[in-house]
Amino acid sequence: MKGRSLLMIPGPTEFEPDVLAATGAPTVSHLAPSFVEAFAGALAAMRQVWLSPSGQPFVVAGSGTFAMELAVASLVEPGDRAVVASTGVFGDRYADLLARHGAEVRVVHAPVGEAVDLEQLEDAVRSTSARLFTVTHVDTSTGVRTPVSELGAIARRRGAICVVDGVCSVAGEEIRQDSWGLDVVLTASQKAIGVPPGLALLVAGPRAIERFEARRTPVRSYYGDWGKWLPVLRGYESGAPGYFGTPAINLVAALAVSLQRIVSEGMDARFRRHEILAGAFQAGVEALGLPQVPARPEWRAHTLSACHLPGGVSLSEFVRAVGESGVVIAGGLHPDLRDRTFRVGHMGSVRAGDVLATLGAVEAGLRAVGRPARPGAGVEAASRFLASVAVPSTLGAR
Amino acid sequence: MKGRSLLMIPGPTEFEPDVLAATGAPTVSHLAPSFVEAFAGALAAMRQVWLSPSGQPFVVAGSGTFAMELAVASLVEPGDRAVVASTGVFGDRYADLLARHGAEVRVVHAPVGEAVDLEQLEDAVRSTSARLFTVTHVDTSTGVRTPVSELGAIARRRGAICVVDGVCSVAGEEIRQDSWGLDVVLTASQKAIGVPPGLALLVAGPRAIERFEARRTPVRSYYGDWGKWLPVLRGYESGAPGYFGTPAINLVAALAVSLQRIVSEGMDARFRRHEILAGAFQAGVEALGLPQVPARPEWRAHTLSACHLPGGVSLSEFVRAVGESGVVIAGGLHPDLRDRTFRVGHMGSVRAGDVLATLGAVEAGLRAVGRPARPGAGVEAASRFLASVAVPSTLGAR
Amino acid sequence: MKGRSLLMIPGPTEFEPDVLAATGAPTVSHLAPSFVEAFAGALAAMRQVWLSPSGQPFVVAGSGTFAMELAVASLVEPGDRAVVASTGVFGDRYADLLARHGAEVRVVHAPVGEAVDLEQLEDAVRSTSARLFTVTHVDTSTGVRTPVSELGAIARRRGAICVVDGVCSVAGEEIRQDSWGLDVVLTASQKAIGVPPGLALLVAGPRAIERFEARRTPVRSYYGDWGKWLPVLRGYESGAPGYFGTPAINLVAALAVSLQRIVSEGMDARFRRHEILAGAFQAGVEALGLPQVPARPEWRAHTLSACHLPGGVSLSEFVRAVGESGVVIAGGLHPDLRDRTFRVGHMGSVRAGDVLATLGAVEAGLRAVGRPARPGAGVEAASRFLASVAVPSTLGAR
Amino acid sequence: MKGRSLLMIPGPTEFEPDVLAATGAPTVSHLAPSFVEAFAGALAAMRQVWLSPSGQPFVVAGSGTFAMELAVASLVEPGDRAVVASTGVFGDRYADLLARHGAEVRVVHAPVGEAVDLEQLEDAVRSTSARLFTVTHVDTSTGVRTPVSELGAIARRRGAICVVDGVCSVAGEEIRQDSWGLDVVLTASQKAIGVPPGLALLVAGPRAIERFEARRTPVRSYYGDWGKWLPVLRGYESGAPGYFGTPAINLVAALAVSLQRIVSEGMDARFRRHEILAGAFQAGVEALGLPQVPARPEWRAHTLSACHLPGGVSLSEFVRAVGESGVVIAGGLHPDLRDRTFRVGHMGSVRAGDVLATLGAVEAGLRAVGRPARPGAGVEAASRFLASVAVPSTLGAR
Repeated sequence: MKGRSLLMIPGPTEFEPDVLAATGAPTVSHLAPSFVEAFAGALAAMRQVWLSPSGQPFVVAGSGTFAMELAVASLVEPGDRAVVASTGVFGDRYADLLARHGAEVRVVHAPVGEAVDLEQLEDAVRSTSARLFTVTHVDTSTGVRTPVSELGAIARRRGAICVVDGVCSVAGEEIRQDSWGLDVVLTASQKAIGVPPGLALLVAGPRAIERFEARRTPVRSYYGDWGKWLPVLRGYESGAPGYFGTPAINLVAALAVSLQRIVSEGMDARFRRHEILAGAFQAGVEALGLPQVPARPEWRAHTLSACHLPGGVSLSEFVRAVGESGVVIAGGLHPDLRDRTFRVGHMGSVRAGDVLATLGAVEAGLRAVGRPARPGAGVEAASRFLASVAVPSTLGAR
Repeated sequence: MKGRSLLMIPGPTEFEPDVLAATGAPTVSHLAPSFVEAFAGALAAMRQVWLSPSGQPFVVAGSGTFAMELAVASLVEPGDRAVVASTGVFGDRYADLLARHGAEVRVVHAPVGEAVDLEQLEDAVRSTSARLFTVTHVDTSTGVRTPVSELGAIARRRGAICVVDGVCSVAGEEIRQDSWGLDVVLTASQKAIGVPPGLALLVAGPRAIERFEARRTPVRSYYGDWGKWLPVLRGYESGAPGYFGTPAINLVAALAVSLQRIVSEGMDARFRRHEILAGAFQAGVEALGLPQVPARPEWRAHTLSACHLPGGVSLSEFVRAVGESGVVIAGGLHPDLRDRTFRVGHMGSVRAGDVLATLGAVEAGLRAVGRPARPGAGVEAASRFLASVAVPSTLGAR
Repeated sequence: MKGRSLLMIPGPTEFEPDVLAATGAPTVSHLAPSFVEAFAGALAAMRQVWLSPSGQPFVVAGSGTFAMELAVASLVEPGDRAVVASTGVFGDRYADLLARHGAEVRVVHAPVGEAVDLEQLEDAVRSTSARLFTVTHVDTSTGVRTPVSELGAIARRRGAICVVDGVCSVAGEEIRQDSWGLDVVLTASQKAIGVPPGLALLVAGPRAIERFEARRTPVRSYYGDWGKWLPVLRGYESGAPGYFGTPAINLVAALAVSLQRIVSEGMDARFRRHEILAGAFQAGVEALGLPQVPARPEWRAHTLSACHLPGGVSLSEFVRAVGESGVVIAGGLHPDLRDRTFRVGHMGSVRAGDVLATLGAVEAGLRAVGRPARPGAGVEAASRFLASVAVPSTLGAR
Repeated sequence: MKGRSLLMIPGPTEFEPDVLAATGAPTVSHLAPSFVEAFAGALAAMRQVWLSPSGQPFVVAGSGTFAMELAVASLVEPGDRAVVASTGVFGDRYADLLARHGAEVRVVHAPVGEAVDLEQLEDAVRSTSARLFTVTHVDTSTGVRTPVSELGAIARRRGAICVVDGVCSVAGEEIRQDSWGLDVVLTASQKAIGVPPGLALLVAGPRAIERFEARRTPVRSYYGDWGKWLPVLRGYESGAPGYFGTPAINLVAALAVSLQRIVSEGMDARFRRHEILAGAFQAGVEALGLPQVPARPEWRAHTLSACHLPGGVSLSEFVRAVGESGVVIAGGLHPDLRDRTFRVGHMGSVRAGDVLATLGAVEAGLRAVGRPARPGAGVEAASRFLASVAVPSTLGAR
């Protein structure tokens, strides 16, 4: 069993004990009143977390990869044009995925470390008359955050549906689905939502539901067909649960607990906490002399950081050395960066102490691989950053 | 939280405490050595449980409904002919599902309460030149078990791939995948496998893998594409885990625990335990005057029982009354039977005591709805049945 | 880890999942507001469970054996006369225990299988001018229940303090501490209270507190000195926790959960449930031909049963054979009975189904040791008993 | 339920997840083979942790306060002379406690913040012809560590039994019971042993056992009488468990898990880890301008730190402010220090990251109460200390 070591990868993250307790509680029937209530509560809370009172939440057993398919399979039909804005590994997946469902796909690539150029994106949507486009909000492979607040406007201007891949952002980065007019925002349970992996989550706005209802061909995926899930989800919310597949009962119960915590914290406080802790961590790695992958400060995600290692350092040796201080971090994921970068997740239940602990472990790791920084440089810089922000009470206890 | 009440529906079932403890343990990285080992162990154990040394196991986050899609999406191509043998609700789903993936489907229906006629099935396969056929081993909506030991021979004779839906049978009913030549046998975690819902499981035999490798068109489902999962699963088994979607780490860890228990019990002992306990339960309901849905004794499943209620009894009132004795049972599922039958699952960790407790609760429920049977008739008959079998030691403790 | 086998010994018993979850939750500070609230809630609930609004509850880390010492050490002074009414092993312990604290002890023995003769007890109290007497309500070694409703009257008539050892009765057998004038009623957590072992529990009435406050010599036990605990316990109830020893935080949290369940069930309903289920179990063993140790039906406890084995049967072989059906029962404890009796606890969270399951296992055990009863005789008799009582809804679900 | 906040008080501490899982696992019989094995394993491991191959371990349900009584009640007889070396609150308790058991007690007081003067102690033992003396190894109220390696020699020279109160030291501070000739070393589960509170633990050496066996009067405590426990404990170790009181089964199972972890780490590595992390924490608070209670560096405990607050700062306000960063620390305990000091436990499963997180929270707390230190001063100093020690691999992961 995992000891007290700190899991600081970009998902799964450290989960709250009450979330884990719900995950391991004896399984009840999917029709038990207590479960129906928990599921309904989770769906209602999703609207609050996504800031989407008008949205339709979906919770389906599956990984984040399935969430990607669930988000688009019901929205494209054979022959549709689609545009994919890619900042890395996950963006590229949409091209393959959309093609399976019959779409003709154009990919707009951002250079590694850069956000998507929204003008270029809109051009592509316009020129292809795309009916749908996807944007990865925070690219887990590069730590780059693309701004998404204007995507709804682009979508409306161009008559397209915009799908925001928020796997590494929902409940951590600022997202205001309704205000920003985002049609679909998807994520997975094990990131900033704070629940063990196994749930695909998304909220679909009215334009997306309309698009789905207007389709003329059957959805090519059975399990990913919104038409199968809508009556079930609406049934759970109305207290008359339907059945399409047995829900992942334990994970849904855990989701209800975690979302309740998130709602209690408040979305603005939560966005701000992620912003502050990211700032502290990123000040720390900078002080340790580790450059970050995102090319501009404003592109640095608040949920994870991707950093370059000093030349000549073995990534696996470094990650192992950091682990010896009890902190688990991740290696690179992007093919161009794989052996030269490491990634640290700081989302969900993360606290200021976790950031300091991780910077201490990174410092010890650098020492272990023969590239010592000034002792204390990282934690000192992070502390300075924290001292410079006004509201310490938001940094840990909830 | 669920109390000590006994969950006797046809899944989820009562899970062992060590399985639940693994489910709720702090989540580790999907690359943690302990997790890689657990996942590899689970895959190896699946071959033992499916009695398929030559098979390729798949474990993917999703419900049993997704397991159905995962089983066939990679095996059919647009224009393929497929035959579906249907004994109820779940069989019918395959027709819809296969059509999504481009197949032309012929359904062979068995009357409600009857098993599929294998001659009729083979005729349909032959006459359509079907490249694939599906059979529901135990129909969860009727409690009917169709014999599957000959399906491999039929498949080979007809050059088709046979897919056995073992959602309500794997690890409870006798299945010998390799000996019987079954090409794909699928299930879900929350049935006789004994793990909270959220994992789609299947083992694909060599003919199925060959068929997949020979396909000329891309799989229409991205998440259900074997080509995405094979390197990942093989990687976990070889100690070099790949990545396509984050595994449902907690559920996979629980799966490893539960499969290890199953392997320790031994498959023959496990099949026999399910057979004996089903016999005891079914003797009990008969003594209580409750007719069973399966039309012939040899079609009665060992994993669940479906029984008719006396005329005029309200199903919901009866189920609630049974629940007052602390035993949770299920109502009907099949459209033709919905309001007149109840269903009891007796699979996975079920013990003789659970059967007696359930019969006692059913007896009390009949009394509560004004249709009392002779007091003790059900438990007495079950006890007589148990006394008539030789090996009590197999009935409870493992 | 314990599997789904049923623990039917006279303590520890089967505990509810939410009680176990509280036991294993991350430990908080003994000064954490949530813990202070839980502890205060547990103390308040004890008054409801003991039916003693005027009483002072004590919760101290220790086993039931320590509860015995905690109950009397603060109430006797060197030279005091004390009477011990003994029905078996646990009664005898008080003689030793009281002597350690300086008392001159007279023991009134009941023959094995018989309750204490209250006239004889009062005679002894009177003739010795005893200042304190102890009675074991239910003797865990014989299953004999001595009536205790008159003890308060005797105590008042004789100017003595009466101490009721309710280790195997509190929260299962009817006890009305205030109405019956019982001065001290003690128990341990792992019996009908339903919490893992490790807490000594008692409620002291006003006469006992007065006696303590009037003592002229220091209590010989430091840890068992009420004077150390009273400010702490009163502090927790008033929201200003004191400190004498660190509370067993996890067990106290679990106690709060379990007591809340007990209060929700209602004491009358709970007493009745224990009475009915004891009646069912005892009807069952009688039908199986197993005589009970208590010499008269009215002395049979509602919390456990002690039964004689057929001559020539090896106790250990029988207990093992019962265990093979997944039910754990206990051997004898009383020196005169040790190898010829077995004991079954049916208290706390016990349900009708547990009684049936246990009788089924006992029947299988008899078969295994070559002394078969008529198949189904036990469960049938228990079912008949259950059918003869009016309110099935009290038998399981809460 | 406790969230992810860090519990850094001097007990209970942060416990490992596998220890908590064992604590909350379904309770088994105290005679179950798995429990007998776990208990025997715990007793054997205690000898390794106490470095006392010749010792007799005791594990009894009770708090640390009971451990104090269990340690001496069986060793003193009425009229015996005893010396108590007191460095604070806990030392003083022994005077009261020993008097209860009939001893004539002389207390040797050290000034607050100072260790006991061993010459003065030996003088007192010699001049009173004391048969027993007690020393508090680490005083939880002051953070002062008194050296105990010479106590065995003093005890032998003076024919006395030495009792070391290791409540806040065993398994954290260096103790070599056999080599140092310590007769009794006691502790409680919730400190560096790493198990939820509720177990009194001690190891008695051969001289202590001999002294007990030679006593002429009965032990005044029933529950604390070694004569009752020795056959039980020896029975569990020999596989033939006896019975005196029901063991705190869940806590004993958790103890077995935690001791196994401790043995795996190795005692030298564990002592060194505590020393290094204490050094880091104490360097940090010094850099933050917070003086420590122990008057000399060599008296500073490795398991906890007690620090003075700046004048005029409200202790409760400061502790609350620290808590807002998610770290729980303790206020003062010693009557002379209560409102002006705070205490931080760093023992058991503590890691370097916990020290950094706590210093960060202390820094934020100082800022919140208007006494800011230089931002990052504390964590920087701790990091410098950590960088100055050779073996980072000992600081976290085990």
